[in-house]
Amino acid sequence: MKTEIINIGDELLIGQVVNTNASWMAEKMNLAGFSVNQVTVIRDDEQHILDALKEAATRSEIILITGGLGPTKDDITKKTLCKYFQAKLVFNQMVYQDIEKIFKDRGFPMTDLNRSQAEVPENCTPLRNFRGTAPGMWFETKLEEAHEPVVFISMPGVPFEMKSLMEEEVIPRLRKLFNPPYIFHKTTLTQGVGESFLSDMIEEWELQLPGHIHLAYLPQPGLVRLRLTGCGPDEKILHGQILAEVEKLRKIAGEYIYGEDEDTLEELVGKLLSEKGETLAVAESCTGGYIGHLITSIPGSSVYFKGGVIAYANEIKENELGVQHESILKYGAVSEQVVTEMAEGIRKKFKTTYAIATSGVAGPGGGTTEKPVGLTWIAISTPEKTIASNFLYGENRERNIRKTALQALNQLRKTLISA
Amino acid sequence: MKTEIINIGDELLIGQVVNTNASWMAEKMNLAGFSVNQVTVIRDDEQHILDALKEAATRSEIILITGGLGPTKDDITKKTLCKYFQAKLVFNQMVYQDIEKIFKDRGFPMTDLNRSQAEVPENCTPLRNFRGTAPGMWFETKLEEAHEPVVFISMPGVPFEMKSLMEEEVIPRLRKLFNPPYIFHKTTLTQGVGESFLSDMIEEWELQLPGHIHLAYLPQPGLVRLRLTGCGPDEKILHGQILAEVEKLRKIAGEYIYGEDEDTLEELVGKLLSEKGETLAVAESCTGGYIGHLITSIPGSSVYFKGGVIAYANEIKENELGVQHESILKYGAVSEQVVTEMAEGIRKKFKTTYAIATSGVAGPGGGTTEKPVGLTWIAISTPEKTIASNFLYGENRERNIRKTALQALNQLRKTLISA
Repeated sequence: MKTEIINIGDELLIGQVVNTNASWMAEKMNLAGFSVNQVTVIRDDEQHILDALKEAATRSEIILITGGLGPTKDDITKKTLCKYFQAKLVFNQMVYQDIEKIFKDRGFPMTDLNRSQAEVPENCTPLRNFRGTAPGMWFETKLEEAHEPVVFISMPGVPFEMKSLMEEEVIPRLRKLFNPPYIFHKTTLTQGVGESFLSDMIEEWELQLPGHIHLAYLPQPGLVRLRLTGCGPDEKILHGQILAEVEKLRKIAGEYIYGEDEDTLEELVGKLLSEKGETLAVAESCTGGYIGHLITSIPGSSVYFKGGVIAYANEIKENELGVQHESILKYGAVSEQVVTEMAEGIRKKFKTTYAIATSGVAGPGGGTTEKPVGLTWIAISTPEKTIASNFLYGENRERNIRKTALQALNQLRKTLISA
Repeated sequence: MKTEIINIGDELLIGQVVNTNASWMAEKMNLAGFSVNQVTVIRDDEQHILDALKEAATRSEIILITGGLGPTKDDITKKTLCKYFQAKLVFNQMVYQDIEKIFKDRGFPMTDLNRSQAEVPENCTPLRNFRGTAPGMWFETKLEEAHEPVVFISMPGVPFEMKSLMEEEVIPRLRKLFNPPYIFHKTTLTQGVGESFLSDMIEEWELQLPGHIHLAYLPQPGLVRLRLTGCGPDEKILHGQILAEVEKLRKIAGEYIYGEDEDTLEELVGKLLSEKGETLAVAESCTGGYIGHLITSIPGSSVYFKGGVIAYANEIKENELGVQHESILKYGAVSEQVVTEMAEGIRKKFKTTYAIATSGVAGPGGGTTEKPVGLTWIAISTPEKTIASNFLYGENRERNIRKTALQALNQLRKTLISA
């Protein structure tokens, strides 16, 4: 079953907007059991739209169309679809009521232009859009030469309207019509291990995966996500098989695995601290506030996060965190001794159960032979002990900061679990 | 002169990779005077590639192709181009030397597969790629029905290789061949003003812009960028005209303008502090370390940034920043009084010339009728005075944090300029 995506809109062709709709739609379609054959981005131009629709129908059975459904005169997708299907526009009461409700909720008066959005091509099934005034439109045609019907689905280009239509209407209807095999995905999240090292480590497990379960590596700076995708006729059996494979993976690479699917380290750390009724403070040198930022990006973090000190200058490390002047002189600011004193200093001063401290050479300047760019010390302080460890990252400042923060959060997570 | 972009690669059709290449290329082409007519994303499949090339040539004069140039067997673009042009592969000494140099620099041995990358279709002009092993390839064909030649250019899909080929080879050659009118762009950066308010404010100026100069609004959370694009036969005259329009714009909206083109507030603030030999500290409540993070994302920021206190809990505001217990009781943590005491406290304690403090209700919880979600106080403390001001942002936590940080940095920038 082949799918094509046609995104209509001048803004996509002048580089003003990155076409994130296409990648989101492609991912969701693949996850739902439909492969995507082509993405075509075109201007709001009638002939160009007609040509693109015609060409797509020769190659694919599902044509997803976004954009050009607004009420103004440069939005021509709806009337072009009428031309393509030789259909006329008809007023639809259900769509009208949905539009009316949106204006009522927003407290705006409805104009004639908005009213005209309740008109849809006579041969389509309107798909209700509860987030905007343009309905989705579903066209199903039986082409002579095709065994399966060809389905054209037109949606607004506004991402959150398109996404909710895709999830609530389009994908369920397509699955019902074409009945593709059941698909199940499970993503396992790892931190602190490079893609190639991880790949060597889990090679044997990967090779023994059954043919209907596929592994994808999805690396990001500091993280590698491992997504298992399975395909089969029975939902329950498939679930069981994939979760069993995740269990095997955990036995091999468990030390690097911190969560699954949409988990984030800052969220997991926050949950653990909340559950235990414990508190946290940070002392950040090379991360410059980034760990505090990640932690406070979680709503409600004030319950467990008291705050921290960004100790960028050495005098701040001494004056605010009680780092010994001699320690800096003897070992340097990027050292086990200093990062340990920083963590213990902030924990004591802020009266928290736990503390994180970081000190490193983020780069691009400031490296020496002994302490090159990318060297980072991280310390976790608990009521019982303080443990410091070091890492050697790369040349890129932004990535070094990000990797240090993720490593520190994961170490705290592990500490909290074993406490 | 119409351009099409063809991006080849399975990874773009499963949603694993967002097609940022297409938007980058579309923007650069538009900026160079070439409009983009269509973007087509297709699989690594010979027939599909052949069809896409053929269709594109019926519509456009410039066909930019990315992807499928790696050395492995799933990369089939080069041999498909040979088939399309009925050309055979020939060894190219210059390309070979470039590849050899890359392996020498990286200290890796060269394999037969890599050597084969020095073979190019006999009818193309290879474009040297100094960042990777696959050369760009330029094909120029005179179609019978066309007045202008049709140019096909194949490039690697790796973004930094594609970008350097586009900037160093492709765009200069296209401009030479097609000689489009001269294009000049100037972006003016504003902060602290919404798009619609700004639009009202500069409407008269916008209406008087000459026909060959076009204005684009490019909003981001907390910022609005205004890009003027002009098109004309004479470079010098055009420059002068656009810079004169920017001057007029500055007279109208100068209070919101902080920079131009690629400037960032954290960079501008850093430059001003460096030039003046002054220092900075931050006291962050609602921004939770994000201002520190922005400032320390600039290499060399340790020269002027001493650090700060993330004062998330009220006790930290009191104990670390000297905020009076009575001030919090009487006015609340989100108040002019408290944010002023925070800024003065950190400046004194960290012995810096300047300080920033923030305190707000980031949301989504924690709002009251008197102090709703989105309310933020910002204070800037200098050796002479401390000035606090408040803002009411929206419901979104991430945006509130970002907007507060940008506002605070811009206020500091203005303070530094007038000091």
